[in-house]
Amino acid sequence: MKIPVVRNILEVNDRIADQNRAIFESSNLFVINLMSSPGAGKTSLLEKTIEKLKDRLSIGVIEGDIQCSFDAERIAKAGVAVTQINTDGACHLDGNMIREAMNQFDLSALDLLIVENVGNLVCPAEFKVGENVKAMILSVTEGDDKPLKYPLMFQESSALVINKIDLLPYVDAKIETIRDNVAKLNKDMAIFEVSCKTGEGIDEWIAWLEKQVDQAKK
Amino acid sequence: MKIPVVRNILEVNDRIADQNRAIFESSNLFVINLMSSPGAGKTSLLEKTIEKLKDRLSIGVIEGDIQCSFDAERIAKAGVAVTQINTDGACHLDGNMIREAMNQFDLSALDLLIVENVGNLVCPAEFKVGENVKAMILSVTEGDDKPLKYPLMFQESSALVINKIDLLPYVDAKIETIRDNVAKLNKDMAIFEVSCKTGEGIDEWIAWLEKQVDQAKK
Repeated sequence: MKIPVVRNILEVNDRIADQNRAIFESSNLFVINLMSSPGAGKTSLLEKTIEKLKDRLSIGVIEGDIQCSFDAERIAKAGVAVTQINTDGACHLDGNMIREAMNQFDLSALDLLIVENVGNLVCPAEFKVGENVKAMILSVTEGDDKPLKYPLMFQESSALVINKIDLLPYVDAKIETIRDNVAKLNKDMAIFEVSCKTGEGIDEWIAWLEKQVDQAKK
Repeated sequence: MKIPVVRNILEVNDRIADQNRAIFESSNLFVINLMSSPGAGKTSLLEKTIEKLKDRLSIGVIEGDIQCSFDAERIAKAGVAVTQINTDGACHLDGNMIREAMNQFDLSALDLLIVENVGNLVCPAEFKVGENVKAMILSVTEGDDKPLKYPLMFQESSALVINKIDLLPYVDAKIETIRDNVAKLNKDMAIFEVSCKTGEGIDEWIAWLEKQVDQAKK
């Protein structure tokens, strides 16, 4: 009985997400859905991204959290428009939630909308929200076996940001093993090795993101 | 339409979990449901726990993973009976999955059954499996704001193992802030500061767990 219900929810969500997608396209707006485990560094990566890009692109952020608005406050400080979604227990964002939140922005004035999903390496990968691309973060502290244990997100995402590389000397995870495991799931994945703390590797991520936005606008 | 369906699933699960609980009790068996984000150290804590307790208690382990059996292989090497549940995409274990897996053990021969849930700081907290207690791990690399952002698991769990304290010099998270945030949600939570890598703090966790098993058997 359970699986048909869940399938139904996914199909309904896909329809709503496709409608969101059409609205974003009509506004010539590029949308990225950013996912990861709790504490992998989504908000930190956003802060760095905003700092590097806000003079070149008009950016909006939708912050998804189960409750509270700490991350939205951090993003507001970074100087861009932000809307908070509190899921009230739900483990992922869906098309309906984004439909509500997107109405808080003047979409035609934006170049880039970043959706920061709920911290969860499983469920967000199943729910489209109307994005052009999905991207994900894996912290080296989570271990290099994670692609094989949580494959869907690695398969669904176009880009992987391997974060906290400043901690590599102190953990057992190896970048090469992460890359080898990703290659088994998604050969086309763009991979970036960064430290949001030191700033290392951030420029490569920014260059990729800017290219995505430019290509979508053509 | 969505919420009533989810409630229904939770109620059905509660009934099955209560039936599991009754079976475990009739076997005089203590069951712990261990939860955390991906890569926080559930399997590493289990390896340490088995090493310290296997001469004193007869231990079984149920390993929950979306797919693959790396963790079950690690646990089998540690020298106790282990059963793997592959959830095939599902983000948490539920009462039905445990019902199947528990039949793989001679329950009356066990003192302690440890259920290692899917790595997810959200959904597993909603689904009882028939456990005596829930326990959780938070790695210091995840940040000290996590209790306030993912409150349900901190409210549902009797014990919190703060892991990877060997990395404290290199991260921004503070143990005192984690403790302060937990106190706002769950004043009775037993908190352990450990490093599964160095072994620091493991003995306090073991003493607590042994006490729980002893009390349940009285």
